[in-house]
Amino acid sequence: MQHLVIEEFLAVTPRNAVYAQSGGVTSVINATASAVIQTARNHSHAIKNVYAAKDGIVGILREEMFDTSAESTDAIDALKHTPGGAFGSCRFKISTADVGDPVAQRLFEVFKAHDIGYVFYNGGGDSQDTCQKISSLSQKFEYPIQCIGIPKTVDNDLSQTDTCPGFGSVAKYVAVSTREAALDVKSMCETSTKVFILEVMGRHAGWIAAAGGLAGNVPRDPPHIILFPEIPFDLKMFLNKVDRTVKSLGYCVVVASEGARYADGKFLSDAGKKDAFGHVQLGGVGAVLSTMVSDKLGYKYHFAIADYLQRSARHIASQTDLEQAYAVGDAAVNAAVEGESGVMVVIKRNSDDPYQWTTRTTSISKVANQERKVPRSFITKNGFGITARARRYLEPLIQGEAYPPYNDGLPSYTELARKPVKKRLPKYILP
Amino acid sequence: MQHLVIEEFLAVTPRNAVYAQSGGVTSVINATASAVIQTARNHSHAIKNVYAAKDGIVGILREEMFDTSAESTDAIDALKHTPGGAFGSCRFKISTADVGDPVAQRLFEVFKAHDIGYVFYNGGGDSQDTCQKISSLSQKFEYPIQCIGIPKTVDNDLSQTDTCPGFGSVAKYVAVSTREAALDVKSMCETSTKVFILEVMGRHAGWIAAAGGLAGNVPRDPPHIILFPEIPFDLKMFLNKVDRTVKSLGYCVVVASEGARYADGKFLSDAGKKDAFGHVQLGGVGAVLSTMVSDKLGYKYHFAIADYLQRSARHIASQTDLEQAYAVGDAAVNAAVEGESGVMVVIKRNSDDPYQWTTRTTSISKVANQERKVPRSFITKNGFGITARARRYLEPLIQGEAYPPYNDGLPSYTELARKPVKKRLPKYILP
Repeated sequence: MQHLVIEEFLAVTPRNAVYAQSGGVTSVINATASAVIQTARNHSHAIKNVYAAKDGIVGILREEMFDTSAESTDAIDALKHTPGGAFGSCRFKISTADVGDPVAQRLFEVFKAHDIGYVFYNGGGDSQDTCQKISSLSQKFEYPIQCIGIPKTVDNDLSQTDTCPGFGSVAKYVAVSTREAALDVKSMCETSTKVFILEVMGRHAGWIAAAGGLAGNVPRDPPHIILFPEIPFDLKMFLNKVDRTVKSLGYCVVVASEGARYADGKFLSDAGKKDAFGHVQLGGVGAVLSTMVSDKLGYKYHFAIADYLQRSARHIASQTDLEQAYAVGDAAVNAAVEGESGVMVVIKRNSDDPYQWTTRTTSISKVANQERKVPRSFITKNGFGITARARRYLEPLIQGEAYPPYNDGLPSYTELARKPVKKRLPKYILP
Repeated sequence: MQHLVIEEFLAVTPRNAVYAQSGGVTSVINATASAVIQTARNHSHAIKNVYAAKDGIVGILREEMFDTSAESTDAIDALKHTPGGAFGSCRFKISTADVGDPVAQRLFEVFKAHDIGYVFYNGGGDSQDTCQKISSLSQKFEYPIQCIGIPKTVDNDLSQTDTCPGFGSVAKYVAVSTREAALDVKSMCETSTKVFILEVMGRHAGWIAAAGGLAGNVPRDPPHIILFPEIPFDLKMFLNKVDRTVKSLGYCVVVASEGARYADGKFLSDAGKKDAFGHVQLGGVGAVLSTMVSDKLGYKYHFAIADYLQRSARHIASQTDLEQAYAVGDAAVNAAVEGESGVMVVIKRNSDDPYQWTTRTTSISKVANQERKVPRSFITKNGFGITARARRYLEPLIQGEAYPPYNDGLPSYTELARKPVKKRLPKYILP
């Protein structure tokens, strides 16, 4: 019923849209931005201007938005190969969908002041919760906003969607880096480092760590050990596996999720007050594991912490991921123009090999605040590797190299004009 | 005089060559191996077979070598795009050039047993010292060995050569990664991380850290701070610069050399651990700096440790570096065939722009155990950045993207047959 009302409303009155980036950024989130803006330009009968919020929802509340109509076609196109969040992102949640809440009220004052009829919210699980609340508030305030969630998270932990744009590229980065670093360690292990640990992101779900498993094809290939948040860490089993691997192959490569934890749920990185170098522990599972290996086995070790490098590595982005990041942005605008609201775009896998996928939408209530972990069937029995089933799932996601253009030896990343939308409301201080 | 004797000897009797990789490997050291083998194959009148030592000089002493004549042309060609050390490398020094030394004696027993007439030693400063000792021992033992040093080190700290193969690629990796991660931090700084630290290699020389400076073009571009081993660390100045940068730009990106140290020479990350050469083992400056930033300024931080990822990242190797890595291997064999010995191949820069370079040879005694640091004129007055002069030097080295071939989303790195050379001597235990 409401669906029809909105469609009729739209048919006569083009309104403005807000696009917001939320949560940790990825190497391809700007491709989604590019798609939203480009597709909206093709639907000017329904969407007037796309305003991009500065720093996500914080920018909407502060009435800080950029008018993307001021950006050239080339600049919007160049977003496809530019990592980071071109408009800024944030970690800020709308805590309640209560109409009496001052934050909710401010949000809708801004929407009204700028004739916002569409919200495209590009983020992970927390962000989709905010998107759902905006959708709910729209009905309570009786102010029509079509709110469409667009998935994005390197953690790959959103439910309902086969994968999350951003993940395929970090998966490729981690798989490539593991393969490369392992060749280095293998070359030197006779007289130098025997154990190498690569610490990767994924506080609650081990998807990124799992992707490291793609670096090898048979059990003796690195990585020899993957540590998942899903599998309780057992020190004895870990050291035993490291030792056996070093004794049989000469070296051992470990890919460890930052979220690796003990059976009681305590993170390894919270285990000690000091790291391998006697410094205050700063949340580094790589340092904790290295200390274990050194203290108990006496092997020389090295560890790398990929940190932001992994999720911004546009230079080695997956072509598949890039295409999906663009497709979800495009689908979000099409869904809005067709009258949908309160939905998130998802990717549906139709077949593994050949890999075929489409986009569709699903109710955002099914997605918000859910966390999809790596299924047990994706992890080998000993808990240290990935199964053939995991490979069938992961492999398509890292296919293709979407190289950015280079200038003078460095990737040529775009900077936008970022023309501010004129403010119409009093200044606002975040709570 | 000896020069002529060797030439006459060679003219009639082709002899075998040993090629050894030594010290930390790089993403392009195998391109040098490829060149040595390919060029030697073109000089079969002088060089019979190229034996590649397993794990560097350790393999010569143990009589563990691979007969590269068993490798296909395709496999040798594929070495050009395969990182790590295909034959294994080591950290092992010949401690003396005394003929009474058992290690020296064993070395020449192996050379004699396998009719070795050429040694191609591919390494950094410590390795060139070993190369010099072999050359000196050759005269003392009156057994003609033409020993040619081939430069290789990501640290770029060899003297006499304009640059060291391996450095251009790590420089490119660090510059690209800094640019990418900085876009991520900038996107999120309003509500999340404000200070990002990338820890890079370079124990005594800040060349790799300097390369991070290429990520930006003007002072407000990241990286905002580079920490060089050459500039004594001043906590107050560092914190002041971090604070001012965050206050003016919203975020601050730091590229820190693992060798950053205080005025008294003590490393920021010194924990008293030593590597096989007796060097202090580092790898914690990122954590130390983060603690400083957090404790004194209260800013949220993240740090990445590139570790082996940086020196094995063949996926983003510099085309210039790759060409130089090949050229030094080729030049080494040509020099040997022309009768040279006791020399190292160096790269000579003829002009910055257009970048023009050639190879030549220089006496290895000028190179061994020398360390070339970043000149003060390459570092800005405040000690935190690179000058235009540094840029002129560094920029040509990261030009061109030498992408490896991909298969199923991952770089297709070669594995060799590694056919062992038949042993002729009793087993040997390393001292």
